[in-house]
Amino acid sequence: MKIGLAQLNYTIGDFEGNKLKIISSISNAKSQNIDLLVFAEQAICGTPAYDLLNKITFLDLCEETLVEIASHCEDIAVIVGLPIACDNKTISVAALIQNRQIIRYVGKKDILSRDEQRHISPSKGCQYVSIGGHKVAIVVGEDIRSEEEFGQYADTIINISANPYARGIIEDRYSFFRTLSYKTGKNVVFVNQVGGQTDVIFDGSSVVFNSKGESIAILNSFDEDYASVDLDADMPHVELPYQNKTVNVYKAMKLGLGDYFHKNGFTKACLGMSGGIDSALVMAIAAEVIDPKDIKTLLMPSPFSSDHSVDDALKMAKSLGVDYDVIPISEIYQTAVDTMKPVLGGTPFDVTEENMQSRIRCMLMMAVSNKYGHILLNTSNKSEVAVGYGTLYGDWSGGISITADLYKTEIYDLARYINRDKEIIPEEIIVKAPSAELHPGQVDTDTLPAYDVLDAILYRMIEKGEHREEIVNAGFDVDVVNRIHAMVIRNEYKRYQSCPFLRLSTCTFGVGRILPLTNKYGY
Amino acid sequence: MKIGLAQLNYTIGDFEGNKLKIISSISNAKSQNIDLLVFAEQAICGTPAYDLLNKITFLDLCEETLVEIASHCEDIAVIVGLPIACDNKTISVAALIQNRQIIRYVGKKDILSRDEQRHISPSKGCQYVSIGGHKVAIVVGEDIRSEEEFGQYADTIINISANPYARGIIEDRYSFFRTLSYKTGKNVVFVNQVGGQTDVIFDGSSVVFNSKGESIAILNSFDEDYASVDLDADMPHVELPYQNKTVNVYKAMKLGLGDYFHKNGFTKACLGMSGGIDSALVMAIAAEVIDPKDIKTLLMPSPFSSDHSVDDALKMAKSLGVDYDVIPISEIYQTAVDTMKPVLGGTPFDVTEENMQSRIRCMLMMAVSNKYGHILLNTSNKSEVAVGYGTLYGDWSGGISITADLYKTEIYDLARYINRDKEIIPEEIIVKAPSAELHPGQVDTDTLPAYDVLDAILYRMIEKGEHREEIVNAGFDVDVVNRIHAMVIRNEYKRYQSCPFLRLSTCTFGVGRILPLTNKYGY
Repeated sequence: MKIGLAQLNYTIGDFEGNKLKIISSISNAKSQNIDLLVFAEQAICGTPAYDLLNKITFLDLCEETLVEIASHCEDIAVIVGLPIACDNKTISVAALIQNRQIIRYVGKKDILSRDEQRHISPSKGCQYVSIGGHKVAIVVGEDIRSEEEFGQYADTIINISANPYARGIIEDRYSFFRTLSYKTGKNVVFVNQVGGQTDVIFDGSSVVFNSKGESIAILNSFDEDYASVDLDADMPHVELPYQNKTVNVYKAMKLGLGDYFHKNGFTKACLGMSGGIDSALVMAIAAEVIDPKDIKTLLMPSPFSSDHSVDDALKMAKSLGVDYDVIPISEIYQTAVDTMKPVLGGTPFDVTEENMQSRIRCMLMMAVSNKYGHILLNTSNKSEVAVGYGTLYGDWSGGISITADLYKTEIYDLARYINRDKEIIPEEIIVKAPSAELHPGQVDTDTLPAYDVLDAILYRMIEKGEHREEIVNAGFDVDVVNRIHAMVIRNEYKRYQSCPFLRLSTCTFGVGRILPLTNKYGY
Repeated sequence: MKIGLAQLNYTIGDFEGNKLKIISSISNAKSQNIDLLVFAEQAICGTPAYDLLNKITFLDLCEETLVEIASHCEDIAVIVGLPIACDNKTISVAALIQNRQIIRYVGKKDILSRDEQRHISPSKGCQYVSIGGHKVAIVVGEDIRSEEEFGQYADTIINISANPYARGIIEDRYSFFRTLSYKTGKNVVFVNQVGGQTDVIFDGSSVVFNSKGESIAILNSFDEDYASVDLDADMPHVELPYQNKTVNVYKAMKLGLGDYFHKNGFTKACLGMSGGIDSALVMAIAAEVIDPKDIKTLLMPSPFSSDHSVDDALKMAKSLGVDYDVIPISEIYQTAVDTMKPVLGGTPFDVTEENMQSRIRCMLMMAVSNKYGHILLNTSNKSEVAVGYGTLYGDWSGGISITADLYKTEIYDLARYINRDKEIIPEEIIVKAPSAELHPGQVDTDTLPAYDVLDAILYRMIEKGEHREEIVNAGFDVDVVNRIHAMVIRNEYKRYQSCPFLRLSTCTFGVGRILPLTNKYGY
């Protein structure tokens, strides 16, 4: 049996576009005499569609599209994912089409994704079917993880999925499927979605293992791809590619940013450049995804900005060919301080005036956005988002953040990767001490521990969910751990009002970790 | 059998405080010879605790607190709610304590609340026990709605719950429980949480119906309360109170705002007053909940503000005795426009400059907040949140919104209710045409339909989930419906970055209705 794997980039709710992609893929597969063509979970509508999944009109369109797809399936079997209504609930199914008929729906049992838990209900799980004389088990999504054994009912396991990227997940998946095929002695075909859907990034990385646990087809990560295997032939083993985490994150960021723009019809971006590493990294990646002529940056020095910051940012903006202006904010800042004298007069300079500078910059960037239609790119990183080192309605703002799920140490890794062939981010920006430059001589380590220490503590706290005691027992200073912990808890309110963060880790703030704002418990 | 109902206001994660309340209630009940004292679902930890529910240390504290509570239960049976760990998952249970022993856990089967769907797993549901010779069914939360019949196993159904307020829900609940007791011929005891937890408001409204469907104990709505019933005596029927929706919303807002401040240790609030009805209503309610001396308001006229707006706002601020300043923003605005000349010069005045005014006001209000610790109260309403008629990082900002789940027409209802005995909100503010005053002579109806039409359309779209066709078929203009619909869809990105909205309706933006930002589907 020849099985084709169609790894495509769908758009949520774009039934026409998704359908055309699917039908064109079916047409190509037929010309190659493919017996069974497999598409990903929820291919027909795109995912995560959230409350659209509970709209009858949306589900009706899913079904109508499926019927039209089926009409193109003479001489080929197709498995394609979609949501359907079932007993007043919505379930996620794999539809099996044979001889232009929708033969069967296989529903998903385990709803593990937080994006689906409020919108998709559990169904019955794995089913066994015969396709061209082959015994096939069809499994949707994470059900593959809970299925204990596939017994004598199947030679081949087909798992359609919409499993998003997170750091380390590609290796984990390969390893899981290799073990599954080896232990069960069955062929395993995994077809995943690819593409960005606002903050969610599907990496693709579809794969086929034969019954000996050997990979015989490996599809691209972070790109559309197609492959086919002949399960009756003795296909050669293809080596699994080495996974470099920094490279994967880099590709994920480009795909996520690109699709956010492309799928929403945005063409222009803007961001403020401070001369710091975060905005430099965002700019470097944006300029690879968006035409530099369509990127506008403002350099907005305040009385506390150092000369080298402006110079470094200017150097980078010029070399990338993006549109820039230097707009000093000193006058606006001074006017604001003067205007507020009746209220704030006589108080010492503090975080109020620091935030004021940041909020003025936000106002100016949003003016660019409002006037010319540029989407403001946020430049926060996960370390500062965690401890609240940033200004709500100031540098916390933006249409989307591609960096807010990356710890500061990872920002540096990416900056060095970006510069692998030539200097795109000026070396001065990479080597200088990080500073918000909101008061004279400020550096981040005035109030934060060194980033390698901070990030190590945060990673244990956030990604690993460790309790403070565990972190201290691992050798970190108890006072530092307690102080960081208190900052993380106290700043949940800022994260509540964040823009979408491209999800790059196993625990992205906002979705992966939600705490009550009113909360007396310090765990 | 004498049953006591303890309707208490818990704080999330405040194990010590919650425990003291519970033990004190037990002590009082013992002195009244109560046989069984019933507390609400998740009384021990408060709810919704989100990801805290998946922390072992949090669940350990729940259990330790339960054990300590049990040690106070000589000569009295107690039913109290808490989350417990079960097979690596978290379930919500009613613990039954008899003779100082934890006799049984009854788990919740149906997880219907969106606040719990990611954090609580389904358990087995209703169980039957014997308490003092009485046959009792114990049911947690919404399981009460799916239980078909209680057969011969119980004389009395006890339902512990943490069921939040939403417009109309109190009548609905009364009606459901009355029908349940009448149809099953059993006593029904319902004990609910009361109190605000950030955006969620529990209204209490605990109640007992006898086996004839008569209410025999009715506890307060929006306040702590206690009552007891003797199921062996012939207790008199107590009339169910009439529910006025405006009054209930008013009480819910006060409770929600008060607990947000009280439980978080906040004492001071600030808000900008425009002279419009929204900020006037927020001010009126804030001044009932927070000491007016601890409320700071700024009146921030721009070149486009009308004199009467400032006068009306001033009149109200003075009469309430709140701290106020008039801070014209014209100079800051002009300096910002001048500074941005290299970027914006030569373009006509548009929404950019309108938003600039709003963002300057946000910056000034946040300066008050940062300098003196006042929590900024947002003044948006649901009509404008729906259509995006507001400025992100401008008037969209705040620590909490008590009005953003109220349509503009409901804002007027509340304003009239606030003025029921004397004029608190100046009549001028209520009667004038709504305007954002961001350009000369602007009124809301320049770009929006009249609010009664807009709100009627929005209510069908949001609360009732109607498709555009259905709304048009109900008699609304097709062009208006399509235009409103497009605005609602287009502005999902602004709602993504909202502050917490006190939940007052059956479909609050952000929780009750979540759409993908990247979405080609216009339903």
